[in-house]
Amino acid sequence: MSPSARVPVELGARSYEVRVGGGAIADALNEALSRLGARRILLLADANVAPLHAPLVRDVLGDALPVTLHELPAGEAAKTFDVVAAACRAGVESGLERGDLVVGLGGGAATDVAGFVASIVLRGVAWVSLPSSLLGMVDAAVGGKTGVNLPAGKNLVGTFWQPVAVGCEPALLRTLPEREFVAGLAEVVKTAWIGDASLLDLVEESAPWSASHQGLTEIIRRSVAVKSRVVAADEREGGVRLLLNFGHTLGHALETEGRGRLLHGEAVALGLVAALHLSVAAERCTPEHLDRLVRLLESLGLPTRDRAFDPDAVLGRVVHDKKRRDGKIRYLLTTGVGSVSVSSDLPAGAARAALEFLRR
Amino acid sequence: MSPSARVPVELGARSYEVRVGGGAIADALNEALSRLGARRILLLADANVAPLHAPLVRDVLGDALPVTLHELPAGEAAKTFDVVAAACRAGVESGLERGDLVVGLGGGAATDVAGFVASIVLRGVAWVSLPSSLLGMVDAAVGGKTGVNLPAGKNLVGTFWQPVAVGCEPALLRTLPEREFVAGLAEVVKTAWIGDASLLDLVEESAPWSASHQGLTEIIRRSVAVKSRVVAADEREGGVRLLLNFGHTLGHALETEGRGRLLHGEAVALGLVAALHLSVAAERCTPEHLDRLVRLLESLGLPTRDRAFDPDAVLGRVVHDKKRRDGKIRYLLTTGVGSVSVSSDLPAGAARAALEFLRR
Repeated sequence: MSPSARVPVELGARSYEVRVGGGAIADALNEALSRLGARRILLLADANVAPLHAPLVRDVLGDALPVTLHELPAGEAAKTFDVVAAACRAGVESGLERGDLVVGLGGGAATDVAGFVASIVLRGVAWVSLPSSLLGMVDAAVGGKTGVNLPAGKNLVGTFWQPVAVGCEPALLRTLPEREFVAGLAEVVKTAWIGDASLLDLVEESAPWSASHQGLTEIIRRSVAVKSRVVAADEREGGVRLLLNFGHTLGHALETEGRGRLLHGEAVALGLVAALHLSVAAERCTPEHLDRLVRLLESLGLPTRDRAFDPDAVLGRVVHDKKRRDGKIRYLLTTGVGSVSVSSDLPAGAARAALEFLRR
Repeated sequence: MSPSARVPVELGARSYEVRVGGGAIADALNEALSRLGARRILLLADANVAPLHAPLVRDVLGDALPVTLHELPAGEAAKTFDVVAAACRAGVESGLERGDLVVGLGGGAATDVAGFVASIVLRGVAWVSLPSSLLGMVDAAVGGKTGVNLPAGKNLVGTFWQPVAVGCEPALLRTLPEREFVAGLAEVVKTAWIGDASLLDLVEESAPWSASHQGLTEIIRRSVAVKSRVVAADEREGGVRLLLNFGHTLGHALETEGRGRLLHGEAVALGLVAALHLSVAAERCTPEHLDRLVRLLESLGLPTRDRAFDPDAVLGRVVHDKKRRDGKIRYLLTTGVGSVSVSSDLPAGAARAALEFLRR
């Protein structure tokens, strides 16, 4: 079998590679173990994913070193301080030492939590991310953002802690529920819109998605490459990395306000539509751009309208967005594919009008 | 009033200064605010210290920017995940943004927690440490170690997160209970033993300590300078920084096993005696070194013997020490003042004999 593709993430001493394709899990784990003197592994896995894929991780590792499996609550429910505390205790009680390895297996929530645990247990140990969802592969897997939620909003607590390797094995997506697979495509669309016009064309050509997931490895690889480029330019989100939040200012607020009704990717799809509406209102781009986006999202099976939220409540949530600066809410606007920039200067009522458009 | 003394901590882009002496709190806060565009402050203060000294912090800041005071449980009780979670929530709910400032006021536990909160809330904001205990000034204030405890042991979770400034105002020590002041002297003795022979002489000359704390600023400044030098050489504790744990391997275990009976500094005093006993047993130093240490600690009012612990339980605790590597327990031994090094190769039974010596 040919080795998986390599996408480098250039971060100086913290550089690493994302492996994408068949065999990526074995390639990523072997890469990590060849660099570390780890003597034991703490495997933190989403409770739904562990029965399906933890055996693969154990097979790859063989008898090389002991693996302690600690299951995390499935999905977003894992992103709490209590879950992190329990995982830290499990690690320490399993005999984890500073030179050992944490492995995160699951969707974006599980890898966010695994990375957070790795960054704080024993004041920081190395970790490998093995995303099992499309969202996790194209978004959470690159960049080293870790964290949990607070009642006031998502990801309000966490760290920047880069993994030593990431393994994106598309075969894992065969067990992913269809709705979650489709939701992950919203981040692919966002990523393509930010930085790869030909990837956007490719996604348009692939929709509706074939059950065989043909061409998926290439789409994951190119999404990871765009994100890797942005993260390498701005590890701690001081500037250009903010662009990755395109569609997320209102998207996060819709997701939080939805209290589990919307998957992250579905909220991002709505957030992208709102961001395009804002961009049209601010005369940055044309209604044709908005139409193209809406058509693409709909052909992928993603939501582009929603009437089940209270606009006042969503706007209130935005106030807690952690990317706020100087008390101003910053929105990301686009002038077209490949061009996104920050603005904190919007026409009055534009955000509300964008939310009302979602309720059309 | 002359400005406080400056002790630089050289850590590249993360360099900062520790201010020591009268006015150090104002000097540290003004330094931090001149470097940041902070618009609000989250003041995390030990509940016992807040009524005494939070007004001073507010006076220094005047009406320049809003301060939210969130009290932490007094002392070591603050070092839990629940306290950290509550402080993060309080910060976010007060409107804290990434460019703002966390200030930690209190003993080593409060500043450990404040630094940990600063390192994870909104994925990291700047912080200033204002230690109110001698232990906090000479030990916790320098080095950026933050964290909380787990049932299995102290400081098993945390981060390395450097403050932007530290203010050590000796006048705060006038309100410190005598027992805690004396306990802090154990870290001064440890620091002097590691790296400043003339500081050890000075401490010997100063004992028993005068009620006026005369000469204290100089002793704090020189302790901070030794620690700063060690931390600058090894920020993430890969090598020489381990020396700061002299007396701490058994000391930590005694402290945890004592369940609050021993202050940290008292446990360190016992740990130092045990470390010297181990060093004599390993033929690294002479019994005269041990005698000198015991005499000095006793003249300062620190414990050098203790019969209230179970040696088996303490040895069991040592197994969870996070500085263990390759499954071996590493002890720090000394060949004399200014010379400490790591050994994981001790005569059989030496650790138990050292504990038995404490029970003499």
